[in-house]
Amino acid sequence: MTTPPGVPATMRAAVLHGVDDVRIEDVPVPPIGEHQVLVQVAAVGVCGSDVHYHRQGRIADFVVEEPMILGHEASGVIVAVGPAVAQERVGQRVSIEPQHPCRRCEFCRTGRYNLCPHMEFYATPPIHGAFAEYAVIDADFAHPIPEAMSWEAAALCEPLSVGVWACGKAGIGVGGSVLIAGAGPIGLIIAQTARALGASRVILSDPAPLRREAAQAARFSEVLDPGAPATGGSATGGASPAQVDAFIDASGAEPAVRAGMRTVRPGGRVVLVGMGADEMTLPVSTILTREIVLTGVFRYASTWPTAIALVASGAVDLDSLVTARFGLADVERALEMATRPEHRKVLVLPSDLLTV
Amino acid sequence: MTTPPGVPATMRAAVLHGVDDVRIEDVPVPPIGEHQVLVQVAAVGVCGSDVHYHRQGRIADFVVEEPMILGHEASGVIVAVGPAVAQERVGQRVSIEPQHPCRRCEFCRTGRYNLCPHMEFYATPPIHGAFAEYAVIDADFAHPIPEAMSWEAAALCEPLSVGVWACGKAGIGVGGSVLIAGAGPIGLIIAQTARALGASRVILSDPAPLRREAAQAARFSEVLDPGAPATGGSATGGASPAQVDAFIDASGAEPAVRAGMRTVRPGGRVVLVGMGADEMTLPVSTILTREIVLTGVFRYASTWPTAIALVASGAVDLDSLVTARFGLADVERALEMATRPEHRKVLVLPSDLLTV
Amino acid sequence: MTTPPGVPATMRAAVLHGVDDVRIEDVPVPPIGEHQVLVQVAAVGVCGSDVHYHRQGRIADFVVEEPMILGHEASGVIVAVGPAVAQERVGQRVSIEPQHPCRRCEFCRTGRYNLCPHMEFYATPPIHGAFAEYAVIDADFAHPIPEAMSWEAAALCEPLSVGVWACGKAGIGVGGSVLIAGAGPIGLIIAQTARALGASRVILSDPAPLRREAAQAARFSEVLDPGAPATGGSATGGASPAQVDAFIDASGAEPAVRAGMRTVRPGGRVVLVGMGADEMTLPVSTILTREIVLTGVFRYASTWPTAIALVASGAVDLDSLVTARFGLADVERALEMATRPEHRKVLVLPSDLLTV
Amino acid sequence: MTTPPGVPATMRAAVLHGVDDVRIEDVPVPPIGEHQVLVQVAAVGVCGSDVHYHRQGRIADFVVEEPMILGHEASGVIVAVGPAVAQERVGQRVSIEPQHPCRRCEFCRTGRYNLCPHMEFYATPPIHGAFAEYAVIDADFAHPIPEAMSWEAAALCEPLSVGVWACGKAGIGVGGSVLIAGAGPIGLIIAQTARALGASRVILSDPAPLRREAAQAARFSEVLDPGAPATGGSATGGASPAQVDAFIDASGAEPAVRAGMRTVRPGGRVVLVGMGADEMTLPVSTILTREIVLTGVFRYASTWPTAIALVASGAVDLDSLVTARFGLADVERALEMATRPEHRKVLVLPSDLLTV
Repeated sequence: MTTPPGVPATMRAAVLHGVDDVRIEDVPVPPIGEHQVLVQVAAVGVCGSDVHYHRQGRIADFVVEEPMILGHEASGVIVAVGPAVAQERVGQRVSIEPQHPCRRCEFCRTGRYNLCPHMEFYATPPIHGAFAEYAVIDADFAHPIPEAMSWEAAALCEPLSVGVWACGKAGIGVGGSVLIAGAGPIGLIIAQTARALGASRVILSDPAPLRREAAQAARFSEVLDPGAPATGGSATGGASPAQVDAFIDASGAEPAVRAGMRTVRPGGRVVLVGMGADEMTLPVSTILTREIVLTGVFRYASTWPTAIALVASGAVDLDSLVTARFGLADVERALEMATRPEHRKVLVLPSDLLTV
Repeated sequence: MTTPPGVPATMRAAVLHGVDDVRIEDVPVPPIGEHQVLVQVAAVGVCGSDVHYHRQGRIADFVVEEPMILGHEASGVIVAVGPAVAQERVGQRVSIEPQHPCRRCEFCRTGRYNLCPHMEFYATPPIHGAFAEYAVIDADFAHPIPEAMSWEAAALCEPLSVGVWACGKAGIGVGGSVLIAGAGPIGLIIAQTARALGASRVILSDPAPLRREAAQAARFSEVLDPGAPATGGSATGGASPAQVDAFIDASGAEPAVRAGMRTVRPGGRVVLVGMGADEMTLPVSTILTREIVLTGVFRYASTWPTAIALVASGAVDLDSLVTARFGLADVERALEMATRPEHRKVLVLPSDLLTV
Repeated sequence: MTTPPGVPATMRAAVLHGVDDVRIEDVPVPPIGEHQVLVQVAAVGVCGSDVHYHRQGRIADFVVEEPMILGHEASGVIVAVGPAVAQERVGQRVSIEPQHPCRRCEFCRTGRYNLCPHMEFYATPPIHGAFAEYAVIDADFAHPIPEAMSWEAAALCEPLSVGVWACGKAGIGVGGSVLIAGAGPIGLIIAQTARALGASRVILSDPAPLRREAAQAARFSEVLDPGAPATGGSATGGASPAQVDAFIDASGAEPAVRAGMRTVRPGGRVVLVGMGADEMTLPVSTILTREIVLTGVFRYASTWPTAIALVASGAVDLDSLVTARFGLADVERALEMATRPEHRKVLVLPSDLLTV
Repeated sequence: MTTPPGVPATMRAAVLHGVDDVRIEDVPVPPIGEHQVLVQVAAVGVCGSDVHYHRQGRIADFVVEEPMILGHEASGVIVAVGPAVAQERVGQRVSIEPQHPCRRCEFCRTGRYNLCPHMEFYATPPIHGAFAEYAVIDADFAHPIPEAMSWEAAALCEPLSVGVWACGKAGIGVGGSVLIAGAGPIGLIIAQTARALGASRVILSDPAPLRREAAQAARFSEVLDPGAPATGGSATGGASPAQVDAFIDASGAEPAVRAGMRTVRPGGRVVLVGMGADEMTLPVSTILTREIVLTGVFRYASTWPTAIALVASGAVDLDSLVTARFGLADVERALEMATRPEHRKVLVLPSDLLTV
């Protein structure tokens, strides 16, 4: 695991030292494992979890105890490879799947590697992420992208993978209908995914006017205000009970989940994406009498080929989600902007592959 | 739809007229539809829902508004058939699947007839059940049973179908592990079903000592007292977190469901069978981070062949569950006995095919 | 089952009396069953099976023994309903799913009604089809269509259902790849369906130049001549071994099936649509060492909602497949035209709802 | 990768040098990889493929080009572990899953590692097998066995895994029916597996009287002679058309496959286990009109937990299949005996853990 010729020994990185304490520093370029590649990072999306670590220093039981680099929605170009990786991959433009599963546990062996108990995931303590000039990833998790795909769309294949995983669990298919609570970046991406998978009816719900406007601008015609009196003040707006095939929550808000569940037809599905309260009071009698299937998403597995195909075909448009770009030096501002309702995706451009 | 020769015009039946008001009366033998059969009833299990209608006059939105015959776990012999049914079926011993779906809605057409919005189900207002000398059922829902199967086991194929349906949704298979909350009749039947499907580890939990003893007598070695201090006082007793493949609730009790969910491994399943409170406060973060799949059972579909095969092979023993038998005249006492913890299944024998 | 007011007692129909003997006759309008509707027929596609019955008087064991009306790809307007059907359906524009299953056998109860042994299917002896002014169908098999959908597209939802069923069995999804042998009407419809479901790579193969041109005109870029020397003379042309996720045969030709199977990757699927020889010599060692899954399609079940959604969204274009139209009087010429390679779909317009 | 203390540098092994040329030699004990364990081999079943390599020097495209150790059905005790494996595993009794997949290709990542193109499989050239005192295997493919399980049963978990995999693909479940062609060791194991999974009807067919007797001795009541005139001389004996849920071929014989397919009901499955001719002439019209699903098995994936549970519960009895045992010095005689019809499983006991 020595740094190959042509690769610098150190790199610039945005290192989180504690709550509200991000420092731009020179750190060693990470060593490349046998089956890994080194990627020069082009673009990195800012995720709500990055903001949360920045502001709170923790998410649930994951605590930042030593300096850590944030960022896990990343694209870039392969600049060096480990000894077991084909040299031809150097120069390849890739979208990074930011996971490092053990590949040997029961979950990995059965294709559910996202549940691997030994998972090392970018920007989850103590694993470094991609707000840096370089990052390492297993070769098979550096997914080649088509020439026409932008660096930014390639980075956003990560949240799109969440959408693909969620829509898969929700059973979205041609002619289906789905209610999505939350019209933030993830909600919008899930909605686009559902539409691309052929859903005939995609309903979005959000209390924030700016987000509803963004949803309408993305050509979603059914965008509801859960608090609107015209729709009875219910959290689902005009979505009446037992009429959609699936409900996907991208809000993490208990009232949205409770109201959303009631709109699902017998045999339909509920998928929780948004992390919110640890506990929620749910209408279990509805689950029973309608045999509703309720589950959640935790990362994703084998979603990148689908995500890349959706972007390559034009079925999903990620570029239009980008509302701001920052250089590595401005990571702190990027983290701050990312939570504002007028922004959808804020990107960090850590190297000179792409500049603001 | 005229009564065929040899079939009497009236029959004895136990008719529920209101709360705590069951009367033994002579009522018309029901007319036989084109695709139906008339069954002389041999044995009928008493279910908790029968008790509930007797005591409360309602279950949730189902209200007894006119006189109704209870009982939906039934067996008997075909004594007459409708014009579209083969005459050879007369004389056949059958287990009754007490459902009458519309066969034309989206649910019926796709094999999920248990979710049919037009379902007519025995002993669900205003549909008559089987606490009577005769009952009608669609010919394909009168399932022939092997010669060696008892009338009582044939009646109890109905609760066994609940077990088959629940274990199917829970994904129980060879080598699997399952925690079942509630060691009443349904819990014991689910446990037997899980064992018959090859589960290596079947854990039962119940706060009632008599029920735990019954579970042990049925050769279940892991039977827990959720309140026992030795096991930390948790509702799951010794079942430690994230160790079983599935949790099936047959208790309807919120603490049992909450504790049970925590014992399920990542990717595992939770199935709710027991009707309890309309709402429960559940650990949704566990659903998310483990991608647990939670659902409920509502009736069953196409389970009878499996249920009959399980009994016929000896893999499930239903006869030993029967702890008391009553004639039709004593239905009220049967309903009373059915709730006592020293009883498992109480049967009513409405005709002279089988007597106390 | 009496003819309702406003409906004539007789209608014009094209009746097949024997090989090459179709006669335009006045026949009774069929009686409407309890759960059925009477449809005034707007458009009917001519299928290869219609041609086959016309020329041979039989398909395999199905023999035309008494006068029969051909045609099973039909659309129209509901003009009368049976007593169990809502009167509001009169006036509805519908696409006809030409099946009448028993709804009571094991297959019907489990959602696989296409395998019902008691099936009555349009234009399969002795059941009448739709080359007539009126036809009856079960109410739930008369699928309402959107206002914007043409009569012709509504009729062609039938072959599209074959495509939906075949692509479902082939596991076609976003990013997938598929080779389709045969670029006739069914091959083209399957190809459109695969593209609509998100397949990244859809390869068509056909020895007929006119059909290859039609495929290219439909914007399929990979269209192969199986006999072309440039591609090694193999039946798959340039499709090299083990590279596609699925192979769908719409040719019925043994060399195409043999060559196609070899192009499928490990774990991939082969779906036979085209009826051809009763037996074929197949590379079973390829099935074994790649664990390929091979199956066939026989009619379809619950495909209309998907088919209608695909047309309604514009993902599939059926109108452009229509190359000729004939009135009822010219059915014989329509049957003749339908087999010419310059034609894709030939339609018969049996009533005055739509005219040539 | 150095040999740990206590492990000898060399071991006795039966090395295949060419056709009919097995030599007992001292060879180096194989080095232990980072994630591997070294197993002292207790028992190894002789498989038909071992015999084939011995007699022909090849199977299809797999050619023995350099000296190779045969044997892939093995059990033993862990005597040393690689650096990444817990030291506590030393002393563990294990059943060996003789596969070494790459863990990084698309197949490995999605749980279908048996299809890994980089697979290294015991006794498949040029990978050494287990007819030796020691063998190495990845730690997670050395499956711990219960104390009560014999070394021989632990070795035979390998062919049992074939049965588990085949029955899984055949959809065998409670109450199902299956016809199995071939009553050799694999056929008998598949039949036992099907019975353990709850199949109500397990029919075996074999032209060899000794094998039919062995099947009857194993308590299978329906054992057919495909050539018997009483059953019409058909290859399936008394199994009439379209009556079983599944047909599994463990014979590799074309007449058996052709006849077997005709016995499968609509929607049923055909699974090919036995390697025979590269090509077979099959009734494709039966596949089409019954929508039969046909596939094959190639190795297995994640079957060991099921196999071990089936043996541990007593549902499958492997010990009674063993008809002869040989020491390492007599491997050649073991290979010869294995093909005789009076033998079922012949075992080699390569070390002093178990002796003849």
